[in-house]
Amino acid sequence: MFVAMKPHASPAEFQAVLEKIRSLGLTPQPITGSERKVVAVIGHVTGLDPDDLFGSMPGVAEALRVSQPFKLVSREVKEEDTVIDVGGVLLGGKAIAVMAGPCSVESKDQILEAAHAVKAAGATFLRGGAFKPRTSPYEFQGLREEGLKLLALAREATGLKVVTEVKDTETLPMVAEYADVLQVGARNMQNYSLLEKLGAVDKPILLKRGLSATLKEWLMAAEYIVSKGNFQVALCERGIRTFETMTRNTLDINAIPVLKALTHLPVVVDPSHGIGLRPHVPAIARAGVAAGADGLIIEVHPHPEKALSDGHQSLTPAEFEELMRQVRVIAGAIGRPVGA
Amino acid sequence: MFVAMKPHASPAEFQAVLEKIRSLGLTPQPITGSERKVVAVIGHVTGLDPDDLFGSMPGVAEALRVSQPFKLVSREVKEEDTVIDVGGVLLGGKAIAVMAGPCSVESKDQILEAAHAVKAAGATFLRGGAFKPRTSPYEFQGLREEGLKLLALAREATGLKVVTEVKDTETLPMVAEYADVLQVGARNMQNYSLLEKLGAVDKPILLKRGLSATLKEWLMAAEYIVSKGNFQVALCERGIRTFETMTRNTLDINAIPVLKALTHLPVVVDPSHGIGLRPHVPAIARAGVAAGADGLIIEVHPHPEKALSDGHQSLTPAEFEELMRQVRVIAGAIGRPVGA
Amino acid sequence: MFVAMKPHASPAEFQAVLEKIRSLGLTPQPITGSERKVVAVIGHVTGLDPDDLFGSMPGVAEALRVSQPFKLVSREVKEEDTVIDVGGVLLGGKAIAVMAGPCSVESKDQILEAAHAVKAAGATFLRGGAFKPRTSPYEFQGLREEGLKLLALAREATGLKVVTEVKDTETLPMVAEYADVLQVGARNMQNYSLLEKLGAVDKPILLKRGLSATLKEWLMAAEYIVSKGNFQVALCERGIRTFETMTRNTLDINAIPVLKALTHLPVVVDPSHGIGLRPHVPAIARAGVAAGADGLIIEVHPHPEKALSDGHQSLTPAEFEELMRQVRVIAGAIGRPVGA
Amino acid sequence: MFVAMKPHASPAEFQAVLEKIRSLGLTPQPITGSERKVVAVIGHVTGLDPDDLFGSMPGVAEALRVSQPFKLVSREVKEEDTVIDVGGVLLGGKAIAVMAGPCSVESKDQILEAAHAVKAAGATFLRGGAFKPRTSPYEFQGLREEGLKLLALAREATGLKVVTEVKDTETLPMVAEYADVLQVGARNMQNYSLLEKLGAVDKPILLKRGLSATLKEWLMAAEYIVSKGNFQVALCERGIRTFETMTRNTLDINAIPVLKALTHLPVVVDPSHGIGLRPHVPAIARAGVAAGADGLIIEVHPHPEKALSDGHQSLTPAEFEELMRQVRVIAGAIGRPVGA
Repeated sequence: MFVAMKPHASPAEFQAVLEKIRSLGLTPQPITGSERKVVAVIGHVTGLDPDDLFGSMPGVAEALRVSQPFKLVSREVKEEDTVIDVGGVLLGGKAIAVMAGPCSVESKDQILEAAHAVKAAGATFLRGGAFKPRTSPYEFQGLREEGLKLLALAREATGLKVVTEVKDTETLPMVAEYADVLQVGARNMQNYSLLEKLGAVDKPILLKRGLSATLKEWLMAAEYIVSKGNFQVALCERGIRTFETMTRNTLDINAIPVLKALTHLPVVVDPSHGIGLRPHVPAIARAGVAAGADGLIIEVHPHPEKALSDGHQSLTPAEFEELMRQVRVIAGAIGRPVGA
Repeated sequence: MFVAMKPHASPAEFQAVLEKIRSLGLTPQPITGSERKVVAVIGHVTGLDPDDLFGSMPGVAEALRVSQPFKLVSREVKEEDTVIDVGGVLLGGKAIAVMAGPCSVESKDQILEAAHAVKAAGATFLRGGAFKPRTSPYEFQGLREEGLKLLALAREATGLKVVTEVKDTETLPMVAEYADVLQVGARNMQNYSLLEKLGAVDKPILLKRGLSATLKEWLMAAEYIVSKGNFQVALCERGIRTFETMTRNTLDINAIPVLKALTHLPVVVDPSHGIGLRPHVPAIARAGVAAGADGLIIEVHPHPEKALSDGHQSLTPAEFEELMRQVRVIAGAIGRPVGA
Repeated sequence: MFVAMKPHASPAEFQAVLEKIRSLGLTPQPITGSERKVVAVIGHVTGLDPDDLFGSMPGVAEALRVSQPFKLVSREVKEEDTVIDVGGVLLGGKAIAVMAGPCSVESKDQILEAAHAVKAAGATFLRGGAFKPRTSPYEFQGLREEGLKLLALAREATGLKVVTEVKDTETLPMVAEYADVLQVGARNMQNYSLLEKLGAVDKPILLKRGLSATLKEWLMAAEYIVSKGNFQVALCERGIRTFETMTRNTLDINAIPVLKALTHLPVVVDPSHGIGLRPHVPAIARAGVAAGADGLIIEVHPHPEKALSDGHQSLTPAEFEELMRQVRVIAGAIGRPVGA
Repeated sequence: MFVAMKPHASPAEFQAVLEKIRSLGLTPQPITGSERKVVAVIGHVTGLDPDDLFGSMPGVAEALRVSQPFKLVSREVKEEDTVIDVGGVLLGGKAIAVMAGPCSVESKDQILEAAHAVKAAGATFLRGGAFKPRTSPYEFQGLREEGLKLLALAREATGLKVVTEVKDTETLPMVAEYADVLQVGARNMQNYSLLEKLGAVDKPILLKRGLSATLKEWLMAAEYIVSKGNFQVALCERGIRTFETMTRNTLDINAIPVLKALTHLPVVVDPSHGIGLRPHVPAIARAGVAAGADGLIIEVHPHPEKALSDGHQSLTPAEFEELMRQVRVIAGAIGRPVGA
């Protein structure tokens, strides 16, 4: 159950609502960071009528029960699309955002070359990993702070916004200092301690779907972040694990329209991990846009054959440029522009 | 290993090839129904060089080894797309074929109303089940021959070609008498006795993917049909089984570009079963076309709320018409027309 | 809804029940082959009270609603375990049945050697495939009738009962002539035309689980057979398809206790296909018995390294003998003997 | 590639090996915490012969290539079983360890009652969650430090060793202060920052399998811990995610014998999460032991119907006692005792 206050409700009116909740033997959990003051009502609320209890209290805009287990991220609670403003570049809303760049930051030359290329083709965000969680402890784990500095350099050189992964709470402050958007990897989707910390950060979050997370579990993970006060969350479909072995993952295209109906958060598609095969990345990127995605995140490497990671699924700048041309036409077919 | 004869090779030249194969302790298996005479070489061929053995024999066009376990359906054996001519209406090739109609044939009025509606919106094939394999023995199993007759009636009335399911070898002759395209359901994808019989029928086959069939297994199922002489086979992606429960199945969008690279057979997408939720069928249909599908098969019912089966995933004629409009624009974006 | 008659109910009393059902606008579907006369009531029965309607009619033993979609195979309808009497050898009940033998019948010597070996170790059924559904049309498909004759020969020589696969309706009469138990393979679990025919055969059926069939779908497949009058059905868990690739399938050990609670049919475990790795077959066989299975079916080949199929998962006679020793101890731990 | 030194190799001999590695353009990564000095050789080692390069150097015991991507946890590197000594109570080795207790620590009375009950039935470890990662941010998250104190109290009262979950690096020092064994939950299996920290802790780790982790990925996760110097790691199979919905998870019984062959680490089975249905937990526990598990971890609650979490899958003390009786007989059948 949720109680939302009117825009100009007084602190005393809000206190009265909190008291009323406690008097019912329930726990009020104020939601910080929302545009309007909202308080979640925690406890056994079955059988209670929100409107009866709170509807006529001064300062209360509305009191409602949310049928889904995810609350704040649900369209039941907020009907209009969330649009995240990343320093003037938008994620969510009518225009389709395009994020592109290498899997890992490898060197100054590599990241600058990649950034200029994706910028020229029309991307507005630069992706690139500085901290790389790897299945094996013996594999390349990223350039770490050096990588973050190179991303910042590329941002300065191109004006692109930087999306990069944060892999733990220890390095969160450092990553947040350099990044414009903090990406949470698939393996960390249910790392609740990290999610809670991200709820207190003033940076947008790109939350990748866990390898075998249901849509409900994924939305609950987003709820962890939002319930701690950070409403700037976008979801990224990057393929799920199935029995099929010819492709790296199985991109769940169904997730796009279903999520768009269930939540107001922007939905981004990652065709590079979703199929994992360079020749077929463009087809899946086009499908994602046709299905209604609000953004794409694509691996592009100036020299895929020399990449330290994910070379087999990275597009060349030329392939990316051709893809952008196709994406613009497809987006146009459903009345959406590409880029801010 | 395969040996393909030249177009005007003589029977004696072909006999000589068969003899040569036998003399090596191997078994020749002539492939009937192909445009050119081809013989598969069965047995332990490892280490043998096809060209050395057969390349210089009179009448031989080429001799080659196929690396994939599927042979005749592979692009290695036939590079150009298979285009199936269904009485003048094409399936495969540049134009995108659209098949639409109700899950089950229910009555004369229902099927005629559906047929006229999908024809008006631009479909060239009418789908509709007369024999319905159902999970429960106590559920509606279709109108059987009466349903086939109604489909034939709708064909006469509209000129649409009829696609309908054949569920066993017993009813195959009856279904083949009425249908233009024989659909094999997901549960029958590895019903090899049925597949072999379909290999001897002079009707195109629409082979649906099994619920948890890998792409390789699916292509091997098609190989069963083709190796018996029927080269008119199209594949239909209709969603696979995964852990996700919010959608009926998980449409494997990755399958489209991967199949287009591996095989010359046409690839059709079934968004109705692929997602199973009416409001989201159009998004998945658009995605299928954007990913490169050669056709769509969509459930459309004049009154979905009264349907005897699959009403929850059937579009109304008006929804279908709007979808066709979108599909034409998306198809245009990748340079393909819709319909014959 | 089901109405069961008393053992000595008269034909007139049964007719009266059928009339009553029709008078309610519902359809009676008598269940043939059951030990007692039972009629299923088909149609919209929601809101009707079975006992009110039929409970006091002469000759009626009981009238009940079955909550599960599977009816006749449910423990709600029949509480006591089904015990199948295969010519004096039991399948189901307290003793654990053991079926063993090669994947395919390959030759007279092979099948006789295998039969004598598994008999000596304590098996009571001989398994062996004469018709082999194979993923590739180019692979060994079995010795067909010759294989059936060899199985019959081995039965004569050893007294073992023969379990062999029937792959289609065409060859069903031939297979039924030779076999004691008809096995339905995983790929045919939802081949409803075959299941219906098996419902009219007077032979026990061993129904393998489909590769990605839910327990409910599997029980519905059994319901197809039973609803046509053949109550002699046993279920065989042989592993499901998951994301794990180190093992051939994932044996669903959970299925054993869940099935034993839901259905009265015997449950058999196939560790050979369930894990697909010879060294680990015994561990899974032991686990199956510990979990409560009523039987085991195990691939044993006198010379696994020379087997035409499944050699990598076939035990040698010596390995099988050692396994039987372990199985007897485990079975004893839960108070069950092994073998008839 | 790995080089292992002899027990009494001198520091200079070890230095010489490191130099040799560097001289080849490769990177030496000494493995700390092993019983013997071992150094991993990182870089492109394809084509190099370990024995040629290092075999004859003074102090070198052996130099070997490991074919699996997991190295230190592999049986190729260490053949004998790892036996973890938890303050005199063993985990691994011949005897089967039994861990039991409630899902969450709820109160002093509850944990003491549970501890005494499972101790009386023969358990040697007490399980109980103080930090509970929950899918929803609005659910009970555990008693935290208060819960840890209660676990310590129960240990004092019963002598049982305490197994409890550590959910993040922040609370690791606190949990390590109270716990005897640190459990890593399924959602954290690939939380590499946490795994690395656990590699530096002097406490045994119980690493649960991720919901859709392959066996290889799981062993790689264990490798993360071991490669940082903590060799006291046990693996816990707790069910994987599949398409089946009747059971909470699908316990992968195949994993037990496969892991026992691949790794020297102890393997524990969690039937409570593996099937998630109280009446069927004993069957799965028995199966786990029959398949070769080195331990069981089972949810037992004095009053399951009042449990704050997982009541539907917790055994009563009486059910647990009966299960222990069965487990002892099954274990005896394969020559293993139960408990230290």
